[in-house]
Amino acid sequence: MKSYQEMTREELLAEQKALKAAYKKREQSGLKLDMSRGKPSQEQLDLSMDMMVVLGNNDLKCEDGTDCRNYGVLDGIWEAKVLLGDMIECYPDNIIIYGNSSLNVMYDTISRSMSHGVMGSTPWCKLDRVKWLCPVPGYDRHFTITEYFGIEMINVPMLPTGPDMDLVEKLVSEDEAIKGIWCVPKYSNPQGITYSDETVRRFARLKPAARDFRIYWDNAYGVHHLYDIDQDNLVEILAECKGAGNPDMVYKFCSTSKITFPGSGIAALATSLNNLEEIKKQMRVATIGHDKVNQLRHVCFFKDIYGMTEHMRKHADILRPKFEMILDTFDRELSELGVGNWIRPKGGYFICFEAMEGCAKAIVAMAKGAGLVLTPAGAPFPYGKDPKDSVIRIAPTYPSLEDLTMAMDIFIICVKLVSINKLLREMQ
Amino acid sequence: MKSYQEMTREELLAEQKALKAAYKKREQSGLKLDMSRGKPSQEQLDLSMDMMVVLGNNDLKCEDGTDCRNYGVLDGIWEAKVLLGDMIECYPDNIIIYGNSSLNVMYDTISRSMSHGVMGSTPWCKLDRVKWLCPVPGYDRHFTITEYFGIEMINVPMLPTGPDMDLVEKLVSEDEAIKGIWCVPKYSNPQGITYSDETVRRFARLKPAARDFRIYWDNAYGVHHLYDIDQDNLVEILAECKGAGNPDMVYKFCSTSKITFPGSGIAALATSLNNLEEIKKQMRVATIGHDKVNQLRHVCFFKDIYGMTEHMRKHADILRPKFEMILDTFDRELSELGVGNWIRPKGGYFICFEAMEGCAKAIVAMAKGAGLVLTPAGAPFPYGKDPKDSVIRIAPTYPSLEDLTMAMDIFIICVKLVSINKLLREMQ
Repeated sequence: MKSYQEMTREELLAEQKALKAAYKKREQSGLKLDMSRGKPSQEQLDLSMDMMVVLGNNDLKCEDGTDCRNYGVLDGIWEAKVLLGDMIECYPDNIIIYGNSSLNVMYDTISRSMSHGVMGSTPWCKLDRVKWLCPVPGYDRHFTITEYFGIEMINVPMLPTGPDMDLVEKLVSEDEAIKGIWCVPKYSNPQGITYSDETVRRFARLKPAARDFRIYWDNAYGVHHLYDIDQDNLVEILAECKGAGNPDMVYKFCSTSKITFPGSGIAALATSLNNLEEIKKQMRVATIGHDKVNQLRHVCFFKDIYGMTEHMRKHADILRPKFEMILDTFDRELSELGVGNWIRPKGGYFICFEAMEGCAKAIVAMAKGAGLVLTPAGAPFPYGKDPKDSVIRIAPTYPSLEDLTMAMDIFIICVKLVSINKLLREMQ
Repeated sequence: MKSYQEMTREELLAEQKALKAAYKKREQSGLKLDMSRGKPSQEQLDLSMDMMVVLGNNDLKCEDGTDCRNYGVLDGIWEAKVLLGDMIECYPDNIIIYGNSSLNVMYDTISRSMSHGVMGSTPWCKLDRVKWLCPVPGYDRHFTITEYFGIEMINVPMLPTGPDMDLVEKLVSEDEAIKGIWCVPKYSNPQGITYSDETVRRFARLKPAARDFRIYWDNAYGVHHLYDIDQDNLVEILAECKGAGNPDMVYKFCSTSKITFPGSGIAALATSLNNLEEIKKQMRVATIGHDKVNQLRHVCFFKDIYGMTEHMRKHADILRPKFEMILDTFDRELSELGVGNWIRPKGGYFICFEAMEGCAKAIVAMAKGAGLVLTPAGAPFPYGKDPKDSVIRIAPTYPSLEDLTMAMDIFIICVKLVSINKLLREMQ
């Protein structure tokens, strides 16, 4: 098969005509599909329905006798710290269990740094400029937080091994205004890349000019494998930072949002004891404690990390066919055409399609015309601006396999058509 | 009976001797009682145990079809807005349902005002001084929040009708640095005072110098009556502010913490649509949404406001004997001695004992010596400083009636002894 770049104008025009006809048919079919967000499907949510009754015969007491129904226990019940500690490979002592949203914990962490600084540093709101490194493509909600606080975001390209560490090292060592970096280190959003061992080690050895620089390590997909053996491994950053003499440089975030119920899970932050002490000083002011009953509910539902592993296998069984169908479709339909690139992730919630430069917005718009709503082009970039207009985030989890197949049919047509349109424009 | 002030030195010395012997006996009994915080008792918590199974056969869908298990619905499910709206006498449209802690909502509200201002005003962190009015005695955790943000707190005396409104009106109209006031308007913490109709109307008609001045109306005990007919009534502040041409001047906070389970309840904020719009702008950045399953759990448990009223009657049945025992003891043991004052509240979580000037710390310390832990003297004041050292907060809810009776026995002895010691010192 020829790539589009190798085709003559006449060949492209013929292909364009066929694709236009195919698109028109899809357009008229009245399909309505939303693939814009990384939401679990109903089938996945059904896996956790026992959560609703698991505390039925429980006296709601912790092993240490704490009554989970009453006030108290600022930083989470011990059993939940053990469970989430096993999940993210940290000691329970290094963990705080929060409410339902790790995003909210990240927001709070930046908000506190704005108003109170970090371990005695000048509150960021008193500084003229605060900057942040943003590996791109990345998670739109991260960028929205830093934008909300008026923090200047600097793009750092993602490589197959994670963020471009040459650039990260250079920037943080030179510029004291750079106070943090957003990372989704495992099965990253949206590319599904897991940071290489070298990348993590270089992160742990950073020499930031700002002593209040922190790595925001959002381990959102730590146990979200698609396969049982063929899994990515991520070097544990807290231990690595400690070993590198930078024990306080990282905050590690996680939650059970995509394990049990989004919005009704539990979130956690893991970091050094020094950082924890500072954070608890604020927590004591901001709340009496988080929902311990829900923490206990999670512990009773999973029992231990093995229970969670078993549970994640069930998620994987639901998600694997969806991911494979999409990736196989890309391979079959697009690999020889030279119209885009993608990575085959082994876990996470997304597939990232990198179209030809200048095509992403047009593809998303065209898909919408045929009833397929995708994540807006540009969303995976700070300020919503994809400099190359090429990245499209595909969220395969929510629709049924059948709907997804129809969606991919439309998507492929749109990719091909927009790419041909571009090539034809360039020939003029 | 003579008051202590009327007694001669000899009479006081005789009384002191008898009290010292009585105290010594209590000291040796090895009692350990914690009355320091306003926590519900186990018996109260037992009232809500059906919460743990009420969703067992539920599909976790809202009336409008929303799946509570998944992401979405930033400001709370409609059914929960209706329930909490009925609870605090507001339209559901004026309400946001949050997570488990109204204290956390207050913290967030101040934190946002620090970093982003209020409706376009200068962010408070950019101002040289921010001041706050604090009716005293009040709730220590309120004062801790404003202290944490470096806000200068100004005491305003509580009168039997609520805060001294002459002073409030004068201060807010003169000083643009005053940005807020803490209020617990119904069955106030710790005095159990409900603001009079006139007080609420004068609040609604304030003419603050600062256009970003807001009333923080913490209606924590709105449905926490001790009696079924003999209840305090509070004029609804949102409607009153709207009618007075100050629709945006108040944030109203509430939660179910002392209705179902503290730490596992749901919290809410009610305010004008203008304020809500601004708040949601931030919420959208800070979270994807709060725990909808827990919102639905509360709705299914209570069904409607009548269900909640019935439930609160059961709380009242448990609390009433405790409050009455303490107040009757005060009446019987102390009313003629001239050693203190108290109010007989019709609801809420506390009784406030106002000792003779300079006696509170000594009474709390002496009680501790006999195994009775009270809220630290000074706690109900900004910076923990009671200018008269006279206020002691009594929290009758947590201990059993039996323990409480023993505690009161000790408390009365300590009050008498410390008062006599003071009078004897003054005679020298």
